[in-house]
Amino acid sequence: MMKAHIISIGDELLIGQTVNTNASFIGLILSDLGIIVSKQSSIPDTEEDIISELHLTLAKNDIVITTGGLGPTHDDVTRSAIIRFFKTELTLSNEVLERIRERFRMLNRSMSKVNESQALIPKNATIIPNNAGTAPGYWIEDGEKIVIALPGVPFEMENMVQDYVAPKLVEILHEEKIIKRTTLMTTGIAESTLFERLGDMEALLGDAKLAFLPDPYGVKLRITVIGDTVDEVNNKLLEIEQKIRGVAGRHIYGKDNEQLPEVVGRLLKERGLSLSVAESCTGGFISHLITNYAGCSNFFERGLVTYSNAAKVELLKVDEDTLSKNGAVSLEVARQMAEGIKAISGTDIGLSVTGIMGPGGGSEEKPVGTVFIGLCDNNVCTAQRFKFANDRVINKKRTAQAALDFLRRHILGISYDA
Amino acid sequence: MMKAHIISIGDELLIGQTVNTNASFIGLILSDLGIIVSKQSSIPDTEEDIISELHLTLAKNDIVITTGGLGPTHDDVTRSAIIRFFKTELTLSNEVLERIRERFRMLNRSMSKVNESQALIPKNATIIPNNAGTAPGYWIEDGEKIVIALPGVPFEMENMVQDYVAPKLVEILHEEKIIKRTTLMTTGIAESTLFERLGDMEALLGDAKLAFLPDPYGVKLRITVIGDTVDEVNNKLLEIEQKIRGVAGRHIYGKDNEQLPEVVGRLLKERGLSLSVAESCTGGFISHLITNYAGCSNFFERGLVTYSNAAKVELLKVDEDTLSKNGAVSLEVARQMAEGIKAISGTDIGLSVTGIMGPGGGSEEKPVGTVFIGLCDNNVCTAQRFKFANDRVINKKRTAQAALDFLRRHILGISYDA
Repeated sequence: MMKAHIISIGDELLIGQTVNTNASFIGLILSDLGIIVSKQSSIPDTEEDIISELHLTLAKNDIVITTGGLGPTHDDVTRSAIIRFFKTELTLSNEVLERIRERFRMLNRSMSKVNESQALIPKNATIIPNNAGTAPGYWIEDGEKIVIALPGVPFEMENMVQDYVAPKLVEILHEEKIIKRTTLMTTGIAESTLFERLGDMEALLGDAKLAFLPDPYGVKLRITVIGDTVDEVNNKLLEIEQKIRGVAGRHIYGKDNEQLPEVVGRLLKERGLSLSVAESCTGGFISHLITNYAGCSNFFERGLVTYSNAAKVELLKVDEDTLSKNGAVSLEVARQMAEGIKAISGTDIGLSVTGIMGPGGGSEEKPVGTVFIGLCDNNVCTAQRFKFANDRVINKKRTAQAALDFLRRHILGISYDA
Repeated sequence: MMKAHIISIGDELLIGQTVNTNASFIGLILSDLGIIVSKQSSIPDTEEDIISELHLTLAKNDIVITTGGLGPTHDDVTRSAIIRFFKTELTLSNEVLERIRERFRMLNRSMSKVNESQALIPKNATIIPNNAGTAPGYWIEDGEKIVIALPGVPFEMENMVQDYVAPKLVEILHEEKIIKRTTLMTTGIAESTLFERLGDMEALLGDAKLAFLPDPYGVKLRITVIGDTVDEVNNKLLEIEQKIRGVAGRHIYGKDNEQLPEVVGRLLKERGLSLSVAESCTGGFISHLITNYAGCSNFFERGLVTYSNAAKVELLKVDEDTLSKNGAVSLEVARQMAEGIKAISGTDIGLSVTGIMGPGGGSEEKPVGTVFIGLCDNNVCTAQRFKFANDRVINKKRTAQAALDFLRRHILGISYDA
């Protein structure tokens, strides 16, 4: 198997100003391709450090990937380090120059001299196009070894890896062993409960591997299988997936990188259902998640962030008596909010949330983390109580995910009792 | 100045399953103490890798800190690697054994043999107590050098660093040099434009350092100064900050880790102004950012996500003729949306956005990335055209940030012409 080293360049990583998400992103992609990441290092942005790290790591690996230091300013020294390391020189790339010019035209901004200089690239490099920024990446082959230099801005780097680096690596990999992964996306079930339900790991997995990856949106289950043939690997993956679905199926909303808002959006579109959302405690986050997907205008009509009681009464026709008797965070208000948003927007479904995100606002009866989710369609109006934890930002995420999963289960007819 | 290296141990870091927040946490603590973090590396959890990394890094640094591999299971090999590296042996620590027993009593659980074995520690180590878990840390002095081994579970490690490691490092630091950093948060100006405006870097900085850190929300400028006295360092920092403010002041919304929604929220609260928001293309993201801050209910009244034209007309009283003549994405509709949301919610300020986030929906006249931001207060209604790029999710972030900055500038009376 091929071995790779990831070099992350930048003082901001060493002094802890930036958390290194680039290394984990690349680590995941390489592992998925069956490439072993032997080591990762973060180094200061000086030419000397970069050159010595390239010497050290290229000797021990087939592939070295660097991120950072390719921008247009004085502290971007990766290009000059590469020039010195490979004893080569810079050459003007008209392709890159045109791409940068086009980018500035599109943004309606004037282009500066420093940006023009980004079109100067190492003579021995193939350009890795950057569609989200001005700094191109370099793909440099040196005998059997490969050096890949990418910018440090995460969204630029991530696109370049997905669109260019990963496909090109797939082309040059000639491995006999086949490695495949499937990730099942679950929500609404604790990691420990999942673990207990899955029972004997040895019996479930055999030689395969299962990783539990929890985050505020749920627990991802990543299954990894290595085998000799595509069929063998696929069959084993399917067998394990089916066993997991047998004990936790209703909690699985998707596979691999599918996100719940996307899954729910597809369900709504398939069934020709329109949606409106009334949010209190999530403050617009549910609407935001839904509208991250292009095409949501086919089913998403409107969202109201009724943060004040006045907004709930005026916009959603929530009953003032109910509000004062039960409080804004209550089953009845959640139900009325869902009813109100459905009625004023004329959609097939109205979804609502009201809750206490913290840090303040909790009581003994309704502590921080208490949330009510309401849903009305053309036949039924329902609401349910949930309890999350103490952190405001995490609670918003959990609440939004629970509301979307409430909607998913409602559409699919999956009950909420387990 | 003292030099340190951080070794992060664990396959999960290399395959990208875990983002390495431990390294940035320790990096931040060490930098704040004036210790230079010369490099950070992530390595597999094998004894051989750990031993060879200890050799490599201890030769070049005064301090080496490891995290990970101290747990009770088979893949926790840091302790045995340390034993071999220092050619020492294990000894039973009654202090640790009692602490582990106490912990299990508290949790009402029975203690297993593997946990008992965690009380065996290297003979040359001083114990770093772990109040949140069972694995103790080790503080090992070897001549002038220090090796610190900590568990990998973030909240255990973080407590141990704060309660024990950092105070002990302060005791042994006898440094003459002082290091300090300031980060200026900018938005609405390109990295390259900032760079050009700042002009001669040597004249601006002298011995100081300036790093440009771009993300979709703007460019952070990090100034680092090293000097002999606190006064000298503070004066130099202030001098550079003032020079930067002189050429880019209107783009600077905050310092260090301040976020724009927080800054805007503080401004609104200080001036006793209430806010409502009408969003089309950002789909609730602006309301979400504002409501991430506890206390936003003091000024944030409501937000409407008027995704459909019907919602714009019904809820915000946008004129149907204007809509059909100019299109939903237009200066006039943005202005009317701001006017409408202010009127129906009775707030001091109404803020609105309408735009084309992509990938579809663009035209020659209004390509993807075209955005109009509107704002009405008790005196004036205004709107402005912006142009962002092609990525939908990034465009939402840029648009939300631009709208909040439009609001910030409006409150502060900073014009939008540069």
